[in-house]
Amino acid sequence: MKPDLKVVKVGGKVIGQEKMLHEFLSAFRGLGVPKILVHGGGSIATEIASKLGYESQLIDGRRVTNDDMIGVVTMTYGGLLNKRIVSHLQGLGENALGLTGADGNLIRSRRRPVVNNIDYGWVGDPESVNSDLVHALIRNGSVPVIAPLTHDGSGHMLNTNADTIANQVATSMTGFYNVHLAYAFELNGVMKDIQRENSLIRELDESTYNLLKKNGVISTGMIPKLDNAFQAIKKGVKTVTIVNYKSIGRLDDEEYHDYTRISQ
Amino acid sequence: MKPDLKVVKVGGKVIGQEKMLHEFLSAFRGLGVPKILVHGGGSIATEIASKLGYESQLIDGRRVTNDDMIGVVTMTYGGLLNKRIVSHLQGLGENALGLTGADGNLIRSRRRPVVNNIDYGWVGDPESVNSDLVHALIRNGSVPVIAPLTHDGSGHMLNTNADTIANQVATSMTGFYNVHLAYAFELNGVMKDIQRENSLIRELDESTYNLLKKNGVISTGMIPKLDNAFQAIKKGVKTVTIVNYKSIGRLDDEEYHDYTRISQ
Repeated sequence: MKPDLKVVKVGGKVIGQEKMLHEFLSAFRGLGVPKILVHGGGSIATEIASKLGYESQLIDGRRVTNDDMIGVVTMTYGGLLNKRIVSHLQGLGENALGLTGADGNLIRSRRRPVVNNIDYGWVGDPESVNSDLVHALIRNGSVPVIAPLTHDGSGHMLNTNADTIANQVATSMTGFYNVHLAYAFELNGVMKDIQRENSLIRELDESTYNLLKKNGVISTGMIPKLDNAFQAIKKGVKTVTIVNYKSIGRLDDEEYHDYTRISQ
Repeated sequence: MKPDLKVVKVGGKVIGQEKMLHEFLSAFRGLGVPKILVHGGGSIATEIASKLGYESQLIDGRRVTNDDMIGVVTMTYGGLLNKRIVSHLQGLGENALGLTGADGNLIRSRRRPVVNNIDYGWVGDPESVNSDLVHALIRNGSVPVIAPLTHDGSGHMLNTNADTIANQVATSMTGFYNVHLAYAFELNGVMKDIQRENSLIRELDESTYNLLKKNGVISTGMIPKLDNAFQAIKKGVKTVTIVNYKSIGRLDDEEYHDYTRISQ
């Protein structure tokens, strides 16, 4: 039987605040090994770009990763945030090892093509994951900590969505492990009404998701996360959950149900 | 017989300029494997700190790594520069994998103690190198690329001299390999007079070094590099050289002599 592997994705909001980051990493520590952490970026890149005097270009409200901005996200996601997490975990006794998709050719992406004259710049969509490297690192006792950056194999870094990376990495590891993927964030899971705590959806299948999406019940911010969640469950990841960042250690607790479990 | 391992340290000046960086990495590529690259930081951290509005504190002309500055060097050395090198090498077909000393507990340091009321801040002097991790990465086909950052094991990153890291990493690998350490920079080697190209010292032993240092012939900037070079040769590194960044591939060429070889 294959051993279990936990893959946890945590968003930029949680890692951007010292107290939340510590609460999350303490819970992450409690998961045991093997495990992988994928982290988002968040607003710190915007703050630093603005301080450096780089103007943000937006198309339909989405950021363009121009030459200046790929430098800023490489610094902040791959340097500042990734090493903040790694050194913090090391301080908790976890043997964290930080990586971007360029390191060891971990995740190779295709630069997103220009469509209808819209060019998002240095943004990449993953094409392959070096699962042998991840497996070797895990066998060597490391806890991989992956930043939301990939590369094109031709010398360029690419800005890549962390939810997508979590899905791709989790899926790539199903040959070696029974993979359990958790998307951790500030809420308890997918809500029908974000104002009402008791509107948590505890089990979500794809036909219900499509209906709720059509009716505008699912907020636009949740759609990329959920699209990735359904892709992962269809491609062989054993369990996919959307869960509060403080509760990732409670997913195996039979008394705990305050999260969203994705089903096919 | 142990296999050979090449450890190359390159300075911040070379990696700060695109043309020089490309020339250096092309030469580095030609070295074959196994090999390790240790890179310096250089002036980019100062530029970015200044743009971010952080004031540099200096004591006797040496920078203090305060809370703001450890963030800046973590971003620039561990993020911007390390990933620029890694993605560039990946583009050249080399399986580079970037690390700071925090990653996988690669290099644990002691924060430099306050002496005579002088506190350099978040600066660390290496105490241990996880040579098993380096060995495992090399056996897995990776080329480790190490940034000049370490950690204290209690959750903090530390700013650490790259010449020292190169010496410590090279020395730690002597149990597995015949290690060859090269310090690559803009000059051809140690010069008696930087203005006169024919003043290159082709072989330097420690007693000559101490004499030249005493007489002020060795420039102050070269002293940390040479102190580390002599430590490495005394601790079992097979060859230590100071060499031009374009010529690292010529050290095995019997016709080439324009570099400084360190001898005991």
